[in-house]
Amino acid sequence: IARDERDRVAAALESWSGADILALLVHLRLKKARRLFRWLGDDVSLAVLAELDPRTHGILLERETQRRLKKLVCRMKRDEAVRMLASLPRKMAGEIIDGLDDPEGWRRDLSYREDSAGEAMRRGFLAMPQDRTIGDAIEHLRQRSDEIDRLDALYVVDEEYRLLGYLRVRDLLLTPPETRLGDALRLDLVSVDAETDQEEVLRLAERRNLRVIAVKDPEGRLVGTVTPRELAAIARDEAEEDMLMMAGVDPHSTAHDTPLQIMRRRLPWLLAGLVGAAGAGAAMAGFEDVLAQAVILASFIPAMMAIAGNAGIQASTVTVQALSSGDVWSGDILGRLGRELGGALLNGLSVAVLAAIGIIAISTVFTIENPMSLALTCGASLLTVTTVAAVLGASIPLALDRLGIDPAAAMGVVITTSNDIIGVMVYFAFAQAIYL
Amino acid sequence: IARDERDRVAAALESWSGADILALLVHLRLKKARRLFRWLGDDVSLAVLAELDPRTHGILLERETQRRLKKLVCRMKRDEAVRMLASLPRKMAGEIIDGLDDPEGWRRDLSYREDSAGEAMRRGFLAMPQDRTIGDAIEHLRQRSDEIDRLDALYVVDEEYRLLGYLRVRDLLLTPPETRLGDALRLDLVSVDAETDQEEVLRLAERRNLRVIAVKDPEGRLVGTVTPRELAAIARDEAEEDMLMMAGVDPHSTAHDTPLQIMRRRLPWLLAGLVGAAGAGAAMAGFEDVLAQAVILASFIPAMMAIAGNAGIQASTVTVQALSSGDVWSGDILGRLGRELGGALLNGLSVAVLAAIGIIAISTVFTIENPMSLALTCGASLLTVTTVAAVLGASIPLALDRLGIDPAAAMGVVITTSNDIIGVMVYFAFAQAIYL
Repeated sequence: IARDERDRVAAALESWSGADILALLVHLRLKKARRLFRWLGDDVSLAVLAELDPRTHGILLERETQRRLKKLVCRMKRDEAVRMLASLPRKMAGEIIDGLDDPEGWRRDLSYREDSAGEAMRRGFLAMPQDRTIGDAIEHLRQRSDEIDRLDALYVVDEEYRLLGYLRVRDLLLTPPETRLGDALRLDLVSVDAETDQEEVLRLAERRNLRVIAVKDPEGRLVGTVTPRELAAIARDEAEEDMLMMAGVDPHSTAHDTPLQIMRRRLPWLLAGLVGAAGAGAAMAGFEDVLAQAVILASFIPAMMAIAGNAGIQASTVTVQALSSGDVWSGDILGRLGRELGGALLNGLSVAVLAAIGIIAISTVFTIENPMSLALTCGASLLTVTTVAAVLGASIPLALDRLGIDPAAAMGVVITTSNDIIGVMVYFAFAQAIYL
Repeated sequence: IARDERDRVAAALESWSGADILALLVHLRLKKARRLFRWLGDDVSLAVLAELDPRTHGILLERETQRRLKKLVCRMKRDEAVRMLASLPRKMAGEIIDGLDDPEGWRRDLSYREDSAGEAMRRGFLAMPQDRTIGDAIEHLRQRSDEIDRLDALYVVDEEYRLLGYLRVRDLLLTPPETRLGDALRLDLVSVDAETDQEEVLRLAERRNLRVIAVKDPEGRLVGTVTPRELAAIARDEAEEDMLMMAGVDPHSTAHDTPLQIMRRRLPWLLAGLVGAAGAGAAMAGFEDVLAQAVILASFIPAMMAIAGNAGIQASTVTVQALSSGDVWSGDILGRLGRELGGALLNGLSVAVLAAIGIIAISTVFTIENPMSLALTCGASLLTVTTVAAVLGASIPLALDRLGIDPAAAMGVVITTSNDIIGVMVYFAFAQAIYL
């Protein structure tokens, strides 16, 4: 379709819906998709962007001219425009903002710290002074009904835009029209500072079962709101971040990272893992003479490391998950570790018995020296390693959490490294004691 | 506090809020918490349960008598009661249901397939026939305003409860009261079958930017709705499930699992990992004579396995994440793999150079045979292993996704196993070629 016939393609796409065009773009190579996007009229472009997560707008837009971007920004909703600008390279966004009305306002909206309530909040909200009546408010809403795109609550503020309370839409519906807003307002509104961490906002909403949270600036003025939709987005983002951090990747990583970004976002954890592995290697060097006497022992190193790694990651993931969903009963921590120990012993025993049987079975086909004693060595090591790794995996996140460190961040590498070293040392200690 | 003075404790707690009592329970051992909970009056118990995620009610309730559970169920909201019953052992829930009015209705509510729209939906919603007017509807809402706890939309249905459309609360506010509902209704309502997968519901809502999705039974009758709140809960659950599956744990795992549950939910993946490690061990056995000639080579096995594992998990997590958030541009897959290859080469080169320098530095302190050649062996292996692992890690989830397999499920073990084997073989191949 898209080779170079700009006019024909643009005319053909003019009648398509934004979603359909996006579906087409997604099937093109990025370069082609960007070129095609440049050809579209402004209306069509806006329809396409509306279908796309604003945080990924930058991918499509990074080759656009400033003039066109400025035009698009002016016609987008404020929240979406802010998120779109945030997805562009900083310099490019700065130049666009300079060309807009009220560059200071835009700059302030873009300046909220990442992962703060200010970044996630919705800027469009309705606020009225307290001395108006419900009837006034309804009249006002009727007049502006074209502009209003979502109506979650009506906020009541004083002359300086400081928040006094709110009314739910049903209050407007169910309260006599002559009532003053100030007399009907609900006071159970929780508000947070714009700099509050999004994670904290989410926990607050979940713990207190809140629908809407107001966001204030340092002077106490209402600047935005966090509604169920924003809460859903925060919950998704936080879960994604946890997952990426656990895998040892910077939480900003996306599938569109350039090779240099990939390096910056992953290399630190690779190096940390390498340092841990060097520790395991050094531990092994101490047993060089054991290994020299029976090279076959080396064949079981992968098994020890794999079991230690898997058992540790399993236990720690369950723990991190429970911590982040608030499902850790602090009075039950000993009980939790006890159950973890019980489960680890059962798993370790199963793995050990199966491995031992496997070794003896193989020894009937291939010649292995002392198969019984090798089976015993491997079985005992697997049982010990599984148990230690699972108990460590379950306790390290709890300890990190106590120390105020995000357990997801430190987890991957800390657990893998300690388990690698423990796995190798336990194995060679048993080998020295039993097999030789 | 809680030793055995039942009456005094119960009396003291009577005046506490549900949240405060829950905060106390959480600090007790589970057994004590359950005993204390049994002592509470019904009102207080309900207040405590209201603060707790219904899916974890079973933990507190599993020692309660049937009579008391029945009383609690009758006084809970339907949605919460259904979720609470689902958290109890199946037999216990069955016995309670038999004692309730309309056991068939309860059984149907509990029978929705796990992870289906029917399981997640909200049952409380407002529906009215199309021939009533807006004024009637508002009057009806006014009368029932005590019972209504959330008001997202008013659904308009025909005589057989089949869905015709809906009105948003603001429509009630902004439309003249004498209008018939049938004339004012919005038709852009998307509805799904109760058996639809929750993940699909979530994608639908995100792709089409929907606030509310209606849930119908097979006869087309409205049975519930999915609102932003339910969507948020679905998003969180899906992310948690992905994370647990990636770690090789059954997605139902919780911090309250018993040892037997731990075994059932983790052992399969441990065994799969062991089989993979056995493969790596067998690969190594093929190089036994290489190892016998230079035992020091064994010290670098952990480094190869760690790098292969970490690089693979990093790349695959980013890919899985992108797939689940719909951020994979199918036209850009080659570009994505190219960028991944570029990043992997950069990372591999860094790791290789640093490791080689490290080996040479160590050789000035400890005696190592042929340090330059060992450094070259390790560097070349690390570069190769990092690159292969990252590219495999990025492509396997894409391939699984094409085949219709959930990439998160198969990932952990498939990637770790293949990377372990590749890591060991690449390393020994280089060792044989360069070092010996």
